[in-house]
Amino acid sequence: MDIERFRKAGYQAIDRICDHYRSVQNKPVKPSVRPGYLREALPAAPPIKGEDIEDIANDYQNLIMPGVMHWQHPSFFAYFPAAGTLEGIIGDLYAATAMNPGFNWVCGPACTELENVVMDWVAKLYGLSGDFYNSTNVGGGVIQTAASDSALVAIVAARSRYQRLHPDVPMDKLVVYVTTQTHSLGLKAGLVLALPVHAIPVRSEDNYSLRGQDLREMIERDKAEGKHPFVIIGTIGTTSSGAIDNIDEIAETLRDYPEMWLHIDAAWLGAAFSCPELRERCRLPAVNEYADSLCVNFHKWGLVNLDCSGLWVRDRKNLTEVLDITPPFLRSTEGDAGTVTDYRNWGLTLGRRFRSAKVWFVLRSFGVEGYQAHIRRSISLGEIFAESVRNHPELLELVAPPSFSLSVFRITPSAVPELSADELNDLNERYYQKINKRKDLALTQTKLDGVYCIRFVTGAQKTERCHVEVAFNICLETAKLAIKEFIEYKSGCTATIPVRSHFPTSGLTLKLVTEDWPSSIAHYVLSASLLILVLFYLVFL
Amino acid sequence: MDIERFRKAGYQAIDRICDHYRSVQNKPVKPSVRPGYLREALPAAPPIKGEDIEDIANDYQNLIMPGVMHWQHPSFFAYFPAAGTLEGIIGDLYAATAMNPGFNWVCGPACTELENVVMDWVAKLYGLSGDFYNSTNVGGGVIQTAASDSALVAIVAARSRYQRLHPDVPMDKLVVYVTTQTHSLGLKAGLVLALPVHAIPVRSEDNYSLRGQDLREMIERDKAEGKHPFVIIGTIGTTSSGAIDNIDEIAETLRDYPEMWLHIDAAWLGAAFSCPELRERCRLPAVNEYADSLCVNFHKWGLVNLDCSGLWVRDRKNLTEVLDITPPFLRSTEGDAGTVTDYRNWGLTLGRRFRSAKVWFVLRSFGVEGYQAHIRRSISLGEIFAESVRNHPELLELVAPPSFSLSVFRITPSAVPELSADELNDLNERYYQKINKRKDLALTQTKLDGVYCIRFVTGAQKTERCHVEVAFNICLETAKLAIKEFIEYKSGCTATIPVRSHFPTSGLTLKLVTEDWPSSIAHYVLSASLLILVLFYLVFL
Repeated sequence: MDIERFRKAGYQAIDRICDHYRSVQNKPVKPSVRPGYLREALPAAPPIKGEDIEDIANDYQNLIMPGVMHWQHPSFFAYFPAAGTLEGIIGDLYAATAMNPGFNWVCGPACTELENVVMDWVAKLYGLSGDFYNSTNVGGGVIQTAASDSALVAIVAARSRYQRLHPDVPMDKLVVYVTTQTHSLGLKAGLVLALPVHAIPVRSEDNYSLRGQDLREMIERDKAEGKHPFVIIGTIGTTSSGAIDNIDEIAETLRDYPEMWLHIDAAWLGAAFSCPELRERCRLPAVNEYADSLCVNFHKWGLVNLDCSGLWVRDRKNLTEVLDITPPFLRSTEGDAGTVTDYRNWGLTLGRRFRSAKVWFVLRSFGVEGYQAHIRRSISLGEIFAESVRNHPELLELVAPPSFSLSVFRITPSAVPELSADELNDLNERYYQKINKRKDLALTQTKLDGVYCIRFVTGAQKTERCHVEVAFNICLETAKLAIKEFIEYKSGCTATIPVRSHFPTSGLTLKLVTEDWPSSIAHYVLSASLLILVLFYLVFL
Repeated sequence: MDIERFRKAGYQAIDRICDHYRSVQNKPVKPSVRPGYLREALPAAPPIKGEDIEDIANDYQNLIMPGVMHWQHPSFFAYFPAAGTLEGIIGDLYAATAMNPGFNWVCGPACTELENVVMDWVAKLYGLSGDFYNSTNVGGGVIQTAASDSALVAIVAARSRYQRLHPDVPMDKLVVYVTTQTHSLGLKAGLVLALPVHAIPVRSEDNYSLRGQDLREMIERDKAEGKHPFVIIGTIGTTSSGAIDNIDEIAETLRDYPEMWLHIDAAWLGAAFSCPELRERCRLPAVNEYADSLCVNFHKWGLVNLDCSGLWVRDRKNLTEVLDITPPFLRSTEGDAGTVTDYRNWGLTLGRRFRSAKVWFVLRSFGVEGYQAHIRRSISLGEIFAESVRNHPELLELVAPPSFSLSVFRITPSAVPELSADELNDLNERYYQKINKRKDLALTQTKLDGVYCIRFVTGAQKTERCHVEVAFNICLETAKLAIKEFIEYKSGCTATIPVRSHFPTSGLTLKLVTEDWPSSIAHYVLSASLLILVLFYLVFL
């Protein structure tokens, strides 16, 4: 492809991104494709002759886009938000002019230096302790791809530090600590490193936050059994309910076990550190005082496009002493002199994409105030939903206290009295399945202490008050329907009753896609068949 | 930023990419920045108010670009090539309309399915065994970020398979095998997993390729000591000299140790599999018959932009049985039914960028023929360099047989007779430092069996015959100069003689930047000072 052809194709791609971001709210959030749809639509092998870029781009529109779930849709309330800002797209596009693997300073000085600088910028935006700044040359920040590899790197550093202190402790005595609410990244790290992971139970009465005393008891029990706990992952904003571990209590406990490493996973909620008024509630002061490492995924709530996970450490030597690899072909004058950062020694891989460019574009475009406004807006939208749940205690209840922009709710036990815990879970699972079948909004389910419940989290840039209100109305009406059907099902009548609800909303009218195409088509085919049968009967019999 | 502002900024970014790719060959390959230059140029914290995207883009041009090494420059012959195709940029740009973390099928069906399809496309392009196709539902391919995490994942799978067979073998008895020429990814995996890595020595007379007998001896020796070797990394194209391990001999040996896993690292050279006439020489038939896993970095020689590392496995269960994590909030109907691929269980991280889009754009744009043409062209350019070295035996020699597009050379011992091995290394290091000071071309150094030498590898799309010829002439003339200075230095005279060579070239005249600014300035300052001194002397004395 020559340069002018590229220019044309590039303009077209930009135009299509514009069309997409302008129109996404009019589309269903979720695709209506079945497994294998794309394999059937594509040839079994690449073409022999090169094809025109415009044909490929058109196929992208016609074949790929119908199979995409729109995480930037204003009615996306599932999982956690995935940032996909226009500013980030521009930053990532410019990065294409500096395509290099960034494994050491000399192979792309600007890339290493920008990463060095923007990690300090974010540290300041988030109010992190100066200990974590790259400018200290002691601590520092590095961009990884995901919270999972950030945690893995932290655990490897922790293990190495512990083993230096206790060279005689065999590997199979080492233990990683998480809680029953920690993200699966803890378990994954255990699988990768072949280390046992002990999940400390947390209680609903503590809002699923780890208490210092429970940590101490687990440590003492394990030590008594000859185990060596060496790292604990504390979470600021768990996936299921947004719980915040009692970092201050954990820190207090760890004072008696100073060889243990405290890694903080704030993958989602860490973006809220940007607002000074939220820091205390997020337990940032304790993190600043005590954590050995901290991860925030900028690509979740943090406005930076995938993939981009920030990892800070209080002492970079803990990374480089275990991860340093410098074969002859990677030596450089600057690296040997120790005057530069060679980021390959801060993570798992040698080659690294130039991710800091998009961070830089986003931070400068939004500014501190724009970044904070985005966080505050998401939270106030989330509070609208939580408040609506509270206003309908006859049908719904919050299963845990709302955490900033995340609410976890279910059909309340009192809506259908005398159900067992299992039956109530069954009802709520059926309730969720009804919501999940819809294509016009996306929510996800979870279990809290065995309680089946539904998560609702705001954070997409395009979400407005009206989208939250419409979503709540859908949740409310669907709850009524689910209860009705559940009662009928329990009483032996299995007939389902089709209901087309109208959901009033404030200000904006939204097109709601309440049925997916296949079922509509099935409906029409069935009706037409019946009509033909009746006509056949009338005419011929 | 509103959509029209984005459109304008997007067009501008596309235009600047055009300008960059059109003009890059007129710029120095390497930047002239010193460590810390960017930190000094940027504010210490992000701005409070958001800034205009145009200002940020201009700063990118003025501050970032001067600090970039141009890996797509036609005179870039260092490390290995980093693909940065215009086609890949377009594909990556479209991926911005499907921004999602792709951890399971349901959260972005098209993303998972396209990855599934294109990994089969590349498998066919490369002539891989059908065992590795996703369509088998037994083997399959997945995109990782780099050869390091591909190898790490393979080793974790290998360890897990071995431990299932031998549950009583303690972790500290397990051993990873590499050779003394394996990429540092083997060592890195050992550091991460806390497993010992044994490097089997390879010999120059075997062209640094591992022999089956050496592997067998190492296995027997380790087993006799109670060790459990469970995985060996075989390399198709080592970093230092492009050596290809004797995969057939390794396979023959491993028949007696069937519990050992064979991972093939073909990160760079694997792209050559696309040409049927090269497959035998690349020992692909043995890989196809015996390897448990294979990695090729599409982002090296394979035309796909960073980051994009392909990993195929013969049995996907070996990945999913160890890496599967499915907490309640990630369960889906399709995942539970087992009808879809959930790629989070094939790698280290949960969140994954939509990397297959760029692979798809590249494969379709180039077609099989275009892809092969790129590989064949790089090789023929590499052969020009190797042949030129051979034509100057009085000065230079190849240290190992050229491997496709990679040559490793040095000043030949006979150029300066009676030097010890150390002195010859010293001479060649000085020689390389002279080449390395230049900004108009990039080569890297290495050591082979203690022999200091220089690597020259082609692969950038823009490289033409003339660039190779100019580069060779520079290497030749610099060798003469290095020898001259070395002899003077050895004989006690340390004066350096400035030489400005003119290098004739075929067809194209290139602007050669033979000195970097600081030394020129120093020269002028020195001359001016001397002149002032002389005038002072003449006038006043």
